[in-house]
Amino acid sequence: MKQTILVVGGLAAGPSAASKAKRVNPDAEVILFERGEHVSYGICEVPYYIGGIVPDLENLNPFDPAKLESSRGIKVRIGHSVEQILPTKKRLIVRDLDRDKLTEFPYSKLILATGSNTRSLEMGGKETKNTFRVKTLADGIAMKKFIEERRPKRCVIIGGGYVGMEMCEALSANGIGVVVLHLDEHPMTGLEEQTRKAVSSELKEKGVDFKPRQRLTGFSIDTENNVRAVVTESGSYDCDFVILSIGVEPNTRLASESHVRLGRHGGILTDERQSTNIDSIYAAGDCCEVKNIVSGKWSYIPLATYASRQGRVAGENAAGGRAVFKGAIRSIAVKIFGLEVAQVGISSMEAQEAGFSFSVVHVKSDSKVHYYPGNSKIHIIAITDNKSHRILGANVFGGIGAVLRANVLAVAIQQKMTITEMSQLDLLYSPPFSPLWDPVLVTANQVKRRSGDSSL
Amino acid sequence: MKQTILVVGGLAAGPSAASKAKRVNPDAEVILFERGEHVSYGICEVPYYIGGIVPDLENLNPFDPAKLESSRGIKVRIGHSVEQILPTKKRLIVRDLDRDKLTEFPYSKLILATGSNTRSLEMGGKETKNTFRVKTLADGIAMKKFIEERRPKRCVIIGGGYVGMEMCEALSANGIGVVVLHLDEHPMTGLEEQTRKAVSSELKEKGVDFKPRQRLTGFSIDTENNVRAVVTESGSYDCDFVILSIGVEPNTRLASESHVRLGRHGGILTDERQSTNIDSIYAAGDCCEVKNIVSGKWSYIPLATYASRQGRVAGENAAGGRAVFKGAIRSIAVKIFGLEVAQVGISSMEAQEAGFSFSVVHVKSDSKVHYYPGNSKIHIIAITDNKSHRILGANVFGGIGAVLRANVLAVAIQQKMTITEMSQLDLLYSPPFSPLWDPVLVTANQVKRRSGDSSL
Repeated sequence: MKQTILVVGGLAAGPSAASKAKRVNPDAEVILFERGEHVSYGICEVPYYIGGIVPDLENLNPFDPAKLESSRGIKVRIGHSVEQILPTKKRLIVRDLDRDKLTEFPYSKLILATGSNTRSLEMGGKETKNTFRVKTLADGIAMKKFIEERRPKRCVIIGGGYVGMEMCEALSANGIGVVVLHLDEHPMTGLEEQTRKAVSSELKEKGVDFKPRQRLTGFSIDTENNVRAVVTESGSYDCDFVILSIGVEPNTRLASESHVRLGRHGGILTDERQSTNIDSIYAAGDCCEVKNIVSGKWSYIPLATYASRQGRVAGENAAGGRAVFKGAIRSIAVKIFGLEVAQVGISSMEAQEAGFSFSVVHVKSDSKVHYYPGNSKIHIIAITDNKSHRILGANVFGGIGAVLRANVLAVAIQQKMTITEMSQLDLLYSPPFSPLWDPVLVTANQVKRRSGDSSL
Repeated sequence: MKQTILVVGGLAAGPSAASKAKRVNPDAEVILFERGEHVSYGICEVPYYIGGIVPDLENLNPFDPAKLESSRGIKVRIGHSVEQILPTKKRLIVRDLDRDKLTEFPYSKLILATGSNTRSLEMGGKETKNTFRVKTLADGIAMKKFIEERRPKRCVIIGGGYVGMEMCEALSANGIGVVVLHLDEHPMTGLEEQTRKAVSSELKEKGVDFKPRQRLTGFSIDTENNVRAVVTESGSYDCDFVILSIGVEPNTRLASESHVRLGRHGGILTDERQSTNIDSIYAAGDCCEVKNIVSGKWSYIPLATYASRQGRVAGENAAGGRAVFKGAIRSIAVKIFGLEVAQVGISSMEAQEAGFSFSVVHVKSDSKVHYYPGNSKIHIIAITDNKSHRILGANVFGGIGAVLRANVLAVAIQQKMTITEMSQLDLLYSPPFSPLWDPVLVTANQVKRRSGDSSL
């Protein structure tokens, strides 16, 4: 009998899963349902579209439904909302939103890639005309249109996480003044204190008005339903528009109604093959939790990299293959104006929560030989386990080359390398690229010295 | 009794060893002998000094003898040639070249850091006024002076290795036309064919006249003892000066006369503690062979990185510590005009010689998300073992970011990672830094696909 593989969700994980499934089993019928109008491989480009770096939509969305159908043989149904799973009958109830018509689709295998929802503020302001999220291509397109038509002068970004940070640069490139309202003292909660201070400084230097310790109390909304000011316990911030970037949470309504098991962060729990606890149902992407392979704990890490990988694995296995996704150390990179920032592995706070006895060492060194043009300072904050002497996590920040360097630490963390092993790494040296002792080696030696282990 | 640690050689390994020894045992008397006038931490800067990137000598040589003495407590004896080791008496016979006076120095421990000699051409031309090497600080200073005083228009570089390549850019920056004469079809013998072709193209594009398959037959020398042309079997190449960059060989006269064991490449063989076979004698740097930890074979890899590491290890152990240097995978980086080139691990030719059954995969991918400004192509040529599926070596070349990316492969090679493990690496992604699938991951997936292993 011909296999039918149904995929729910058209962003990142869904198209990855559908493409892989069709490639592994070309005889299978693969149908992808997407509620909205767009199917794409990611939305990480949105800030760069707003900032004018991505010139057109063609570049923003290389996989439109027609292309997915013609080049990959996947049937794509946009404007289709999956209403219910009937797991015992192995069927989906799907609503064609245009015609408002319900249809049942039988499946051999089902892949849930229902993604995430932006967190809600629970205080209104949500449906105003000038409040935007950075969540979908449609959001990006709407914001770009708003900026081009209305020429706004001032934006309040609510939330100083990495999306908020990327939007600061994008808006500044449009000549828009930016105020960032953030709950904590410094942006990028989750990074180490020193990293966050460096981000604060960079924002200040680039003219972004970062407001720490802000608790929202409301919005001033005009008669045309536009937010005119964002009000917090400590002040009122005028604006021409608002960006909400307060994070996302897994979209699991469909899954939970069918008794798919969820984890403590509210995401779907799968095994290494992306199988859920329900027969023939796989899941991938932002609707899932991810195993953190450093702490061993399930985490919620909604990143495009894991969505694509999980999508491929779910697609391959749904089509009869045997692929695995073992989890993530969590690798996050963000460019904030001239500052490169990366986090790999767990933070000192997470190390504490996980019960590690750990050390934190902060090392500042040159990215190139000191006299070489373009040399900049690279900061590495390394978190190491006092017992195993393994590296558990790191923040890297600084000028050009900081993020690419963090990849070396990512590999070290994933490979469970000890500091001694790290200090023995044979990294590349040449004046245009690195000092004689690469910043990673300087850091390893510094950690060893601190711990009283003087042997190289 | 007070320990006396004598170090022979003032370039790279020697100063590293002396500094480390004094730090580990501050009570020890540490004396460093150098035949020439300069003590330094490396000569990798010479091409950048010639090219005008290093503005002055202060930057070129941060550790002059006076500073080493005052800040580190090391006694430095420049202009002192060590003539003989008396291993049974644990004494050195040293000639003060200025006063032409011989003195015996007793030692508790001796560290040989006698470095390398440039290979000789055995055809004259060596003592001409306008032939330069890129070997010592004195060479660099002499060449710079020559260029400034004589304003030469045309240089012939003999040897297209990495020093020759660096000099191409340095001379071009001075407006000097460059001809490179090389034995093989393409420069950088030892790299993979495709890499070498890319280097050839870059040279051509930047106006360097690369002449392949050149066998030297002689020089045209004028009455003032200046080379006017370099003559090969296929032509005569006019020039205002000549740079000899045909490689180096270990300087082991002193060692071999004292029956220190040498390897098949002519370098000193040591154990992991940098001890030689002779009691109380250590060795470090370009006079030593290096264990290649990929092939398991002893190799001759005269690089500053290994010299510094071996120096530190020898210094620490001579002072009573227990440090180790386990060997190298061999990591080489070079910038050739706009082309970044890196080699990590063994080449396909070395894999063949070592008896591996191996595969070579060449992958070209984006360094950043394709639309991001500054995106360039990164080429990775990966050499993998068909049996263990381990990565044995790689060439990486391309635009900005190629070399830093090669570090990820360096770690993978050193950690003996399999291709499947590599494909599971959690590398950083963000449009300004990397495509969703980092070039290293694209490569790992490509190798897996080629080998018929479709599981991710």
